[in-house]
Amino acid sequence: MTASLAEPNLPKTKRGQQTRAAILDAAERVIGAEGFSAASIAGITREAGIAQGTFYIYFESKEQVFRELVLEMGRLTRENLAAAVSGTNSRLEAERAGLLAFLNFVRGRPSLYSIVEEARFVDLEAYRAYFGAFAQAYAQNLDAASAKGQLRPGNTEIRAWALMGMAKTLGERFALWDPDSDLEGIVDDVLDMIEHGLAP
Amino acid sequence: MTASLAEPNLPKTKRGQQTRAAILDAAERVIGAEGFSAASIAGITREAGIAQGTFYIYFESKEQVFRELVLEMGRLTRENLAAAVSGTNSRLEAERAGLLAFLNFVRGRPSLYSIVEEARFVDLEAYRAYFGAFAQAYAQNLDAASAKGQLRPGNTEIRAWALMGMAKTLGERFALWDPDSDLEGIVDDVLDMIEHGLAP
Repeated sequence: MTASLAEPNLPKTKRGQQTRAAILDAAERVIGAEGFSAASIAGITREAGIAQGTFYIYFESKEQVFRELVLEMGRLTRENLAAAVSGTNSRLEAERAGLLAFLNFVRGRPSLYSIVEEARFVDLEAYRAYFGAFAQAYAQNLDAASAKGQLRPGNTEIRAWALMGMAKTLGERFALWDPDSDLEGIVDDVLDMIEHGLAP
Repeated sequence: MTASLAEPNLPKTKRGQQTRAAILDAAERVIGAEGFSAASIAGITREAGIAQGTFYIYFESKEQVFRELVLEMGRLTRENLAAAVSGTNSRLEAERAGLLAFLNFVRGRPSLYSIVEEARFVDLEAYRAYFGAFAQAYAQNLDAASAKGQLRPGNTEIRAWALMGMAKTLGERFALWDPDSDLEGIVDDVLDMIEHGLAP
């Protein structure tokens, strides 16, 4: 991971931090709705209710605000999942709680997929950093659970990517495209497979 | 699925079919390398070695050739997987053969992801049709195996999307981004999880 993908240098004052956050919020709405190419800095500052010159105090370009937005959405999603699994007593309980929280998060925030998936084309390094950070945290959790004997032994890096891919596609199919689907029921079905496998 | 996503009306003559296929091949290379927005019909016809007017005998627009390309790549991928699993004797053997064939296919054809994932933004209906057709065929195979007692009972539609999501993300991470990774070893690890689950 390069220096440019590290934690951003946040403004020193609270007011500065609020303005930066307001720009990222506006960028999420504008780029989520219009796509990266069609979105403009003028549109983002109008949405944020700030002067266009103010944008450049915090970001250099549309590319940079997009990259920060992708990484910020990753941090937000990981925090949300970490909170959801914090009260669980085993890895399999955590898988259930984490998947349900993720699917609910996706349903409530449809711009997540629009923006992160567009990063594949706009900023591949940010896209890979987004999923790489997820997979790394996921594999660490699987390692910790394995050390406690809570999981069948196996390669945790590969499992992390496999489980993440499952969540990603289920989120798209059921949380995003099918607003009436029963997410708890889906999680029950998926967890049965994750826990017991498909062998009869 | 709308009429426009049905099997295309293929040209009647063999020569016409070859020209249409040459345009799709060229579109795959040009759009795969440059992206949909930057690619032009002039660039595609130059790559195909045909006059620009010839393009319009077969396709109405860049949007239409892109849609046909996405659906054609879906048919090709499904045919490739169907061939790979045709000699297997159980669903779990078929899962192994199918996943390995898919990962090898992705490694040999990096434009698959560039094009299909860009469809999410260029032609969401084609993107959904691509994965919908996959999931439908997958669920039918799981149903048939369940009827023979080869699988633990469960919701085959949800399982199909979950397994597809796993393959998609593993393909991106290991086949596409990591050209030296050992795909057979990865399939062994994933199949252990698919077969037996994560419970100790």
